[in-house]
Amino acid sequence: MNRVEGGVTAPKGYRAAGTAAGIKPGSTKRDCALIASDVQASVAGAFTTNQFKAAPVLWCAEVCAGGRAQAAFINSGNANACTGEQGCDDARTTAEWVGRGLGVAPDEVCVCSTGVIGVPLPMDRIEHGVQSCLEALSTTGGAEAAEAIMTTDTVPKEAAVEVVLGQGTVRLGAIAKGAGMIAPNLATMVCVITTDAAIGPGPLANLLRAAVSESFNRICVDNDTSTNDTVLCLANGQADVSSLAPGTDDFDQFGRALTALCQDMAKRLVRDGEGATKFVEIEVSGAQSDADAGQIARSIATSQLCKTAFFGQDPNWGRFACAAGYAGIPFAPDAFALWVEDVQLVKNGRAADYEEAAAAACMRKSEFCIRVRVGDGPGAAVFWTSDLSHDYVTINADYRT
Amino acid sequence: MNRVEGGVTAPKGYRAAGTAAGIKPGSTKRDCALIASDVQASVAGAFTTNQFKAAPVLWCAEVCAGGRAQAAFINSGNANACTGEQGCDDARTTAEWVGRGLGVAPDEVCVCSTGVIGVPLPMDRIEHGVQSCLEALSTTGGAEAAEAIMTTDTVPKEAAVEVVLGQGTVRLGAIAKGAGMIAPNLATMVCVITTDAAIGPGPLANLLRAAVSESFNRICVDNDTSTNDTVLCLANGQADVSSLAPGTDDFDQFGRALTALCQDMAKRLVRDGEGATKFVEIEVSGAQSDADAGQIARSIATSQLCKTAFFGQDPNWGRFACAAGYAGIPFAPDAFALWVEDVQLVKNGRAADYEEAAAAACMRKSEFCIRVRVGDGPGAAVFWTSDLSHDYVTINADYRT
Repeated sequence: MNRVEGGVTAPKGYRAAGTAAGIKPGSTKRDCALIASDVQASVAGAFTTNQFKAAPVLWCAEVCAGGRAQAAFINSGNANACTGEQGCDDARTTAEWVGRGLGVAPDEVCVCSTGVIGVPLPMDRIEHGVQSCLEALSTTGGAEAAEAIMTTDTVPKEAAVEVVLGQGTVRLGAIAKGAGMIAPNLATMVCVITTDAAIGPGPLANLLRAAVSESFNRICVDNDTSTNDTVLCLANGQADVSSLAPGTDDFDQFGRALTALCQDMAKRLVRDGEGATKFVEIEVSGAQSDADAGQIARSIATSQLCKTAFFGQDPNWGRFACAAGYAGIPFAPDAFALWVEDVQLVKNGRAADYEEAAAAACMRKSEFCIRVRVGDGPGAAVFWTSDLSHDYVTINADYRT
Repeated sequence: MNRVEGGVTAPKGYRAAGTAAGIKPGSTKRDCALIASDVQASVAGAFTTNQFKAAPVLWCAEVCAGGRAQAAFINSGNANACTGEQGCDDARTTAEWVGRGLGVAPDEVCVCSTGVIGVPLPMDRIEHGVQSCLEALSTTGGAEAAEAIMTTDTVPKEAAVEVVLGQGTVRLGAIAKGAGMIAPNLATMVCVITTDAAIGPGPLANLLRAAVSESFNRICVDNDTSTNDTVLCLANGQADVSSLAPGTDDFDQFGRALTALCQDMAKRLVRDGEGATKFVEIEVSGAQSDADAGQIARSIATSQLCKTAFFGQDPNWGRFACAAGYAGIPFAPDAFALWVEDVQLVKNGRAADYEEAAAAACMRKSEFCIRVRVGDGPGAAVFWTSDLSHDYVTINADYRT
């Protein structure tokens, strides 16, 4: 698997665009994105578990249930969430406009929205956005699409990889946005993945579910699960490689590439988390099961006191141990061990013999790892999280999501 | 039930003291407290659910299992948590010193610690603290004890009430400390309650459990459950009122007073939460059960995005609805309604017709209420929470708990 330039337009047979339609109030920034496949593609999606599913989430879930799609339209600046029947009508109307422009049925058009909750979509501007995106579609438009879906993100997020399979070479590309309401299940975000591999919608959905559980469900910025979380994957078969079948090496290799791309995007969301100054990997091992390890890792990753200690660059292991201890997973305190990078701070449940300065030096790095061992069990898990900084408070006390 | 002056020494037959023994590094502040009953008392306790139970928590749980105690010694500045066997020995030794001074058995002496995790107790200083407290014990020493247990608290917390029962008058008094690691289950804290009522240890434990579930388990500052959470209640019978028996009006009235006193103390912890500028009551109704309502209220109370909106004085109801939606409790989005004080912001799951200025004015108050209705069910619950401010980040990026 090799990294290649670009994002959603790196695979064959995709065009994209990002334009400004005035949806972000008082801004001239790009706020509409369109990703279109030249031909009908398989589609799969993963969505928020929030009771308040935004209108576009409900719409996309329907499209994905059909298994076939040819485009995804995304607006930032307005989430079209908590907008009732009107919101559902607006999502459908948007799909109709895009479908008419591309000559495809509306139910082959995914629609995503991200931004302020509870405000009706400004449909005159959306219509303008759809038209301008249709006109601007190009095989090099991925970067503009990545820019158009940003909200509080400080950098656009796109990546692409090439995988040499036994049958030939395929590519996968992605764009994603964060940067707040990022909770482990799943992260608050929109991510669109394209691939020129050929794969049926059922197998694609299975691979996407597995990839999301190892990536977007393992990150945390602020532990708020949004109303609009959406991950979409389109597979259009334009690489001219025969269809990937479950049980083959090519299928597994493609799945690993999809997971790796999702992890890459997930880590980018954390690195650009609201106010983040640190990227911290939390590794837990020795639990009874991977699920138990995941719950302990999540507890540390989401703890306000751990996150402020990361910001303070303070190897305050008492907080990390404490957060592990209230995860709701039984373990023997005497078996507990903890490292910051290679410096062991805790052994047998109490302070190890270590140099405070060495531990503090590790935490002054912009990226570091906290490793925890809770016993001799086979369970292990990794989470990625950011710190809790003054800027997080400033951004969220002022910005209306 | 009437409020009366004082705290733990307001009921008959209690003396207390608070002295400085140098346990808080580089500080001359009081850091040792002793509360002693003139006679053996019934005792009940509620403790942290953290896997890492501090040594004094394990010790107190044993004392409470016996049902009888005559004193509680508390140090701040050091949590005696994650300190292994040595920590357990130190807790026992402390109890022995106090017991010797009072002429009671060590297993009738509760010991609590609060402060930094993972550092062995400085036993020479603890010994000094025990001695100075024994010498200073007085019937007016409650306020000094309240001061001595503070860590990042900005104000000492004590309260007392008098209850006129059919059989006579009894008093209850309490001291408590916060102010970080406050999570709903239970709040991170130490609270000692005294009463001159006569009541057996079993009935007292039942009443304390009910009171805690309606008070300390319903507050949130930062959602971190500490290693040292302890609530103790001593009942010494010195009011000369016959023993309270379950099933009597007097018993129920005493239980309500105990719950009210715990709620009073719990609210003080939130008002003095680290960096708090707001005190917010979250009321949820219309759920299928009280437990469901409680989970929704907790989700709003603990959300970083809601808490930063409180700090920003922003009636950003999308965040409040979103947090309700990811609580894991099913409800119909269309039935959702939300008020800030008396201003209805959400009706039938979408924006109500309201004045933004009126809603904003409510949130500029230092204390306000968010009311949520999720349906027509009988379930209701109340939570109390604070905001997430710059000062919270400053305190916790700098202070080592």
